[in-house]
Amino acid sequence: MELSECIKIRRDTRHFSSEPIDEKVLDKAFEAAHMAPSVGLSEPWRYVIVKTRKVKEQIYENFLKIREQMESRLDSEKERQDLHKKMKLEAIQQAPIGIAVFCRCPEPEEFTLGLTKPSVLEWSVACSVQNLWLTLTAHGYGAGWVSILEFDYLKKVLNITENWNSMGYLCVGLPKTDYQGVPMLELEGWKNRTNKPIILER
Amino acid sequence: MELSECIKIRRDTRHFSSEPIDEKVLDKAFEAAHMAPSVGLSEPWRYVIVKTRKVKEQIYENFLKIREQMESRLDSEKERQDLHKKMKLEAIQQAPIGIAVFCRCPEPEEFTLGLTKPSVLEWSVACSVQNLWLTLTAHGYGAGWVSILEFDYLKKVLNITENWNSMGYLCVGLPKTDYQGVPMLELEGWKNRTNKPIILER
Repeated sequence: MELSECIKIRRDTRHFSSEPIDEKVLDKAFEAAHMAPSVGLSEPWRYVIVKTRKVKEQIYENFLKIREQMESRLDSEKERQDLHKKMKLEAIQQAPIGIAVFCRCPEPEEFTLGLTKPSVLEWSVACSVQNLWLTLTAHGYGAGWVSILEFDYLKKVLNITENWNSMGYLCVGLPKTDYQGVPMLELEGWKNRTNKPIILER
Repeated sequence: MELSECIKIRRDTRHFSSEPIDEKVLDKAFEAAHMAPSVGLSEPWRYVIVKTRKVKEQIYENFLKIREQMESRLDSEKERQDLHKKMKLEAIQQAPIGIAVFCRCPEPEEFTLGLTKPSVLEWSVACSVQNLWLTLTAHGYGAGWVSILEFDYLKKVLNITENWNSMGYLCVGLPKTDYQGVPMLELEGWKNRTNKPIILER
């Protein structure tokens, strides 16, 4: 698919059919993810494919807990709180697979070219996620990036003992809807996009 | 350009011709950047186009300072240090434009859906940078993301008074080389890519 078309139609999807994902497409998506730019060629992206029902259930339970915590912050805005409660903000159990995203932390003695602060590594991982997401989109699949989770819990439930930081969880599968070509949060009346990015000149 | 081709040929470029950038391409690149996924539809990306010679000079001076600091960490690895000193790690003055990348921090009372930790906003900005980068690539341009800088200094020299976090600086223009189709750091003998991403299953 043409890049510009793909960028345009990519959505943050939370409604999936139960159809399994084509393994060949998944391979292509990970291949694209691995071609992302990375600080000092560190390739810090680490992915964990989640297929087990039990693990998905545990992650979903954690989502419910954190969602409730988030919603409590809206106690003084009843309407917003109701809308937040109503919206589907994940598809952890419905999506055929989940992909948990991690960022490898270098060893203390390791020198990484350009690594002037630790978060630079996470920017590389996010670029990798975008490559993965666009590639899934180009093949008719979709993803939804869920951050309403306890990052440390995610690491624990997936039994990650390495020094990796959790960067949330992608629900991946065949979308049931394209949300009429706009972000779901816009369609639901939560928030509208702005027309243009904010760009200054110096 | 086809997405997969674009992902494949995108390079982290530090060698540019002095030819000015086509403003129409730049518009398209920012349009694509603005279509990135963002946590809670926060659209936290903020871009500052740098064209002024004086500002570029100041940023370059800062780069030299931080580069030296980084290099001092390699005192016990003379060969690596020499290679680090030899490589061209930026093109701040040669690239026709720079694009400083910032991430807007929400106000304390502001509720952002899904924002369970502040760095999630930076992941959205990095996805936006990747969209911008791929779009530049599709039109024959290139970018190089420079993080060997003092992030706070960058904010100061660009006179950013808003509550934005600096995420480094992109050198943007027409590449002089495609580095034979491999990352420059690989071509220079600094580090090789790995064949495959690390993927676990749960």
